[in-house]
Amino acid sequence: MAFMAKALFPVTSELAINKRRLLRDLNAISRIGIGDHGSVTRLVFSIKELRSRQLLIHLMRQAGLKIHVDRIGNIFARWNGHNPKAPAVLAGSHLDTVVQGGKFDGPVGVIGALEALRTLKENKVPLRCPVEVVCFVGEESSRFGYSTLGSSLVAGEVQIEDLTHAVDAHGTKLEDILASMGIYRDNLASLTRDPSTIKAYLELHIEQGPILETKGKKIGLVTSIAAPTRFKAVFTGQADHSGTTPMEMRKDALVAAAKLITYIEEVCREFSAVEKGRIVGTVGAMKIEPGVMNAVPGKVELSIDIRSITAEAKDRVASQVKDRAAEIARARDIDVEILPIREELPVPLNEELLLLTKHICDQNGIAYEVMPSGAGHDAMQMAKITRAAMIFVPSKRGISHNPSEWTEPEDICLGSQVLLETMIRLANDEG
Amino acid sequence: MAFMAKALFPVTSELAINKRRLLRDLNAISRIGIGDHGSVTRLVFSIKELRSRQLLIHLMRQAGLKIHVDRIGNIFARWNGHNPKAPAVLAGSHLDTVVQGGKFDGPVGVIGALEALRTLKENKVPLRCPVEVVCFVGEESSRFGYSTLGSSLVAGEVQIEDLTHAVDAHGTKLEDILASMGIYRDNLASLTRDPSTIKAYLELHIEQGPILETKGKKIGLVTSIAAPTRFKAVFTGQADHSGTTPMEMRKDALVAAAKLITYIEEVCREFSAVEKGRIVGTVGAMKIEPGVMNAVPGKVELSIDIRSITAEAKDRVASQVKDRAAEIARARDIDVEILPIREELPVPLNEELLLLTKHICDQNGIAYEVMPSGAGHDAMQMAKITRAAMIFVPSKRGISHNPSEWTEPEDICLGSQVLLETMIRLANDEG
Repeated sequence: MAFMAKALFPVTSELAINKRRLLRDLNAISRIGIGDHGSVTRLVFSIKELRSRQLLIHLMRQAGLKIHVDRIGNIFARWNGHNPKAPAVLAGSHLDTVVQGGKFDGPVGVIGALEALRTLKENKVPLRCPVEVVCFVGEESSRFGYSTLGSSLVAGEVQIEDLTHAVDAHGTKLEDILASMGIYRDNLASLTRDPSTIKAYLELHIEQGPILETKGKKIGLVTSIAAPTRFKAVFTGQADHSGTTPMEMRKDALVAAAKLITYIEEVCREFSAVEKGRIVGTVGAMKIEPGVMNAVPGKVELSIDIRSITAEAKDRVASQVKDRAAEIARARDIDVEILPIREELPVPLNEELLLLTKHICDQNGIAYEVMPSGAGHDAMQMAKITRAAMIFVPSKRGISHNPSEWTEPEDICLGSQVLLETMIRLANDEG
Repeated sequence: MAFMAKALFPVTSELAINKRRLLRDLNAISRIGIGDHGSVTRLVFSIKELRSRQLLIHLMRQAGLKIHVDRIGNIFARWNGHNPKAPAVLAGSHLDTVVQGGKFDGPVGVIGALEALRTLKENKVPLRCPVEVVCFVGEESSRFGYSTLGSSLVAGEVQIEDLTHAVDAHGTKLEDILASMGIYRDNLASLTRDPSTIKAYLELHIEQGPILETKGKKIGLVTSIAAPTRFKAVFTGQADHSGTTPMEMRKDALVAAAKLITYIEEVCREFSAVEKGRIVGTVGAMKIEPGVMNAVPGKVELSIDIRSITAEAKDRVASQVKDRAAEIARARDIDVEILPIREELPVPLNEELLLLTKHICDQNGIAYEVMPSGAGHDAMQMAKITRAAMIFVPSKRGISHNPSEWTEPEDICLGSQVLLETMIRLANDEG
C-alpha cells in the first residue's frame, strides 16, 4: 500500500480520454470477422484475427508508439516516460474471440488501454516510468482448447505437454503453427518476459456476468480469478427398448445423470450460501447413447465445470460431486467413470492495486463493486510474474460469448478513464 | 371360446416343423442388409428391403403356395385347405428393420409362419379353411416416422394427414413413393382387406424385452399391446457464462429438465407398483443449447415416451408429467412448452385366442408367461379387423433394435411350432 501513503504525482481528474476515438476504433476492430446477427468470429491465428492485429498495429503507429511484436504475435506498444529503463506499467487484453462471439470480450481492454495511453501521450503527462499497451494472442480456448496462450508464454507458464494435444477441429496442430513461427519446444522460454521489466499489469474487461447490472454498479474491481475444475462423469447402464423394459428392470443412465445434475445445483447453492468463496457448478453439455425416443439411454456423458475463488471450496465440492456420482451409480447398479479434464488453481489479484483502484473510484464518485471474476483472463497468467489488477465494466443481462453481448459505450469509456487514472498513479508511484 | 368345448380335428402333436429349414431361411434373410458387427439394415422401400421380399417370394414359390402381392407390397401366400372360400387364418409379421437393427425383429414371425405353413402343406394336414402367410411392408417407423404402414393400410387405419408429413432423412416423401406404386389419396381404401375373408391373425415375434428371460419362460402369450403417448417438453431459461453467473441468478434449463426426468421415473414406478396396467416412461433423447462446457444451458428439449396397456393409466401419468413440468418451470421462473407428437390407444388382443394358445402350451408342457407387449406390432392394426393373437419368444438380455439382438434357435423353433399348432386348431375350429 506504498502509494496510498505517499504524495502522488499530479492529480489527473481533468485529463479525459477521447470517447469518440475509443468507440470508433473499437467499432473498427469489431467489423473484422463480423457475421450473422452481429456475431464476431476471430479464432486465434485465423486470417480475421491476424487482420485485427494488423489494424491494432496501424492504430499504435498512428499514435506514435514504439511497437514490439514477439515471436508468437503478442503486441507491445510503449511510451517511455521520463525513465525508459524503469519497469513498465502494462495494460491490455486480447483481440481473439470465440466462434460467433461478441464485440467486447477482449477488444474493450486492448482499445481501452490504447486510448488511455494515447491520452497520456497527447497531453504529455509526465510519467516516472514507461507505459505499455499489450495485446495477447489466443486468450480464448475455442480453437485449440488452450486458453491464455500468449500471456501464458510471456509468464513462462506453458507446459509442453499441453501443447502436444492441442489440435483444432480441422486437425491442425497448435505445435505446427508455432513451428511455422519459429517457436519450438526448446525455445519456448525465449518468449517469457523478464518480470523485472514490468511494474504492474492492468486489464480492463467486460464482466461477462450479471452482477454489476443487477447491483447497478458501473465498475467492478476484481479480487481474484476463479479457476475451473473440469471433469466428465460417464454413466454406463443398459440401452433397452422403451416400450418393453419394465421400470424395475431398467438401468437407465440418463435418470442417474439427472440425479447428479440436480445434486450439483444443490451442493453449489448450499456452499455459496454458507461459504465466503462463491462456488458455481454447471453441467453444460451431455452425450446420450443411443439418444433416440424409443430407447432407454444406456450411456450418458456429462461435462461438469466447477469454479470457485478458493481452491479448498472447489476441491471439496468437486469431490462431493464425484462421491455422489459413485453413490448414484451404486444404488442403481450401473457404472460410472470420472474423466478429469482440467484442474486449475484460483488466482488472487494484487491487494495494493485493488486498494488503488477503489481509491480512484471513491475520489471520482464512481459506484463500484469489489468482486471475484468467474471467467479466466490473461491477468491470471500475468499475476504470476507481476502485480495484476482487473477493472470490469457491466455486461447487459450478463450475456457474453454471444452476439447479444453488450456493454454501454458510456460504461466502456468510464472503464478506460479509470484505467487511465490507474496507469498514471502507478507510473508515478515510487514503489 | 367355441373351439375349447368342441371336438377338435386331429391332434397334431406328432407334427413337427423342419427346424433346419426354418433356421436356414431365417439366416438367408438376415444376410440381406448385413453390416458392421452383424447389424442388419433394411429400411422400408430400400433396395435391401425389396431384395428380402424377393427372397421371401422365392421361398413361397418353392413351397408351392399361391402368392398375392398387393399394391404397396404386402405379400400373402396361401394354401387353400378343404374350403377355399372360407375366411383364412393369417399368420405373419414384417421384414423391414430399423437402422443397424438385429436379425430377428420381424423375420422370425414371417419365416416362422412360412415354416408352419410348409409343414402343414407337406404333411397334407386336412384343414377346414385356408391358411396364409403374410409379410407386411414398413412396420418400423425408422425411415418415415410412420409405423405399421402395410398392416394399417390392410386394416383401413391410415390417416391421409399422417402420410402428408412423412418424409425421410433425405427429403423423400412417403406420398411420392406411394404415388410411384399407383397409390393415391383417393384409392388408399382399395388396399384394405375385407374382414370377412379373415378368420384370425397370428403373429410370432421376439419379445424385445427381458421378462421371458428373467422368468425363465420360453413362450410369451400377449394380452394386449401397449400404446405410446409421445410428446416433447421444451424448457427455455437463459444461457449464461458458467463461470460468471452466480447460482442464484441462473435460469438453467438443464436442471429443470433433470428434475422432470427423475420425476418421470418416480411416477411410473409408483403406478407400476400400484396399478394393474403396467406403465413405462422414458426420456430417450435430449437437445441442449448451447450445449458447451462453459455455458449454463438456456434451452433443453426432452423427448418423452409413456406407454401402458390401459389408456386411463397412460393418460393419467402423461398429464401428471405435464403438470409437473409446468410446476418445475414456474418454480424456477423459466418457460416450458409441451409439443405433442403422437397419442395412441392400447390394443387388447383376443381373449379366446389367448386361451387357445395357453391350452396348447399347457398340453405340450411349455412354460409360458401371459404378458402385455410394450412394443407396437402389426397385430395392433390387424386386431382392429379380426381376432388377433401374438406369441413371443425370449430376447437375450431383452436387447432389440441392436446388432446384439439374439434369440436362441431352439426358442425360435418352439415359437414356430406353437404357431403351427395354433394354426391347425384355428383352421379346424368351426367358429
